[in-house]
Amino acid sequence: MKIKVIKVGGNVVEDPRLLASFVRDFAALEGAKVLVHGGGVMASSMQRALGQEPKMLQGRRITDAEALKVAVMVYAGWCNKNVVSLLQAAGCNAIGLSGADGNVIRAVRRSPVPVDYGFVGDIFPDGVNCPVLRTLLEAGMVPVLCAINHDGAGTLLNTNADTIASSVACALAVEDEVELVYCFEKPGVLADKDDDSSVIPVITPSSYAGLKASGAVAEGMIPKLDNAFKAVASGVRSVIIKHAGNLLNDTRTTLKAD
Amino acid sequence: MKIKVIKVGGNVVEDPRLLASFVRDFAALEGAKVLVHGGGVMASSMQRALGQEPKMLQGRRITDAEALKVAVMVYAGWCNKNVVSLLQAAGCNAIGLSGADGNVIRAVRRSPVPVDYGFVGDIFPDGVNCPVLRTLLEAGMVPVLCAINHDGAGTLLNTNADTIASSVACALAVEDEVELVYCFEKPGVLADKDDDSSVIPVITPSSYAGLKASGAVAEGMIPKLDNAFKAVASGVRSVIIKHAGNLLNDTRTTLKAD
Repeated sequence: MKIKVIKVGGNVVEDPRLLASFVRDFAALEGAKVLVHGGGVMASSMQRALGQEPKMLQGRRITDAEALKVAVMVYAGWCNKNVVSLLQAAGCNAIGLSGADGNVIRAVRRSPVPVDYGFVGDIFPDGVNCPVLRTLLEAGMVPVLCAINHDGAGTLLNTNADTIASSVACALAVEDEVELVYCFEKPGVLADKDDDSSVIPVITPSSYAGLKASGAVAEGMIPKLDNAFKAVASGVRSVIIKHAGNLLNDTRTTLKAD
Repeated sequence: MKIKVIKVGGNVVEDPRLLASFVRDFAALEGAKVLVHGGGVMASSMQRALGQEPKMLQGRRITDAEALKVAVMVYAGWCNKNVVSLLQAAGCNAIGLSGADGNVIRAVRRSPVPVDYGFVGDIFPDGVNCPVLRTLLEAGMVPVLCAINHDGAGTLLNTNADTIASSVACALAVEDEVELVYCFEKPGVLADKDDDSSVIPVITPSSYAGLKASGAVAEGMIPKLDNAFKAVASGVRSVIIKHAGNLLNDTRTTLKAD
């Protein structure tokens, strides 16, 4: 089976106009597909509305018990069901899932040493339940995964959505031909971050090293590309980085093995 | 296929001790099963925490746009995923769903005349998607439905969980042998509401009329029993009302046709 795994960020999910356009394009994609979505900004604003102060450390969220409850409500509740209902209206038979649903993704709570990130989960090496995903895909459904997983012992855990997308793509790639697409707010990886026409068409691990050394790729792009190259190394056929508004056209950065 | 449809109220879902006991019993039930859960009290307290005042009219919630967002977050988010993760830990392969997921339940927004209840949905006569439920059941999964549905045009709607349970039971009963169980805080329908040992073992439509006339059955029990008798009239094999803590024992009220 050919399967597309598409990751879209919280900035798209939280913007009704961007989301409407993305949903229309995603629904039009042919073949088996899986959507993974974020929702971080809305979780932070919901925490503030409830009088909680979002705690971040080195750009990562500290998920204490109160923050976990908000993350589950926002990611698995409002964001996920809103995306699913819009996809249904666009003719796409979406089914929204956390990792607990159908035991789709099991994670282990990250060690509190050296830093206690709270209820944050790292996905088990064999934590992605490919048979359940294939059952849903073969029944014509489109799994829509949020950034909540479980440990199998009754605890929900928060996991970065980019990591979920690459883990799902790598696990399915053992048997299937998988394309992984990261959608974000730029048309691809840019040689000049201020020039949207400077999309780098292809990056390999060795050219990536050069882009990091020159500073062309920096900050938030580095964990995203690290995740993406892990997927290339694990047999995902094609890893693509492109604009969330351009899902159906050809402007993109493709990551390849050397 | 024999299918049990079990409804459990928000008071159980929101009480960790009651929920742990219920989850253990539900996981132990053999055969195909579907769980429908409420969560109303937690939605009201979340509304208040966000500075909203829950609006009720004749015992029914008015669901404006803000209240809908909270209902989706609480029912489809926190309550649903918490129940699913606990069931997974108990060895039950639960999959949490709103009506939008897999287009499992479609509803139509209730007419704003004579009373505008807001984003409240009445389930379409053919609104329950039995093929998707059977696909999940045949794959060994246990659907866990919350009180959120969709209209198929991108809008989420709130529906009473008792109504969801009877609608699902009636729809499945066209092909399958269905048992519908309403779990609540009493051991059954009581002849004397202050005496828990006064459980009425069997009620038929004609004895129900007498119980209403004498005042033995009143207030909140009436819509619950009305829903339950609709299921009896629609071919649900067995409709049972019992205590949420007694899922595995025989103390119960059974509703039967005359």
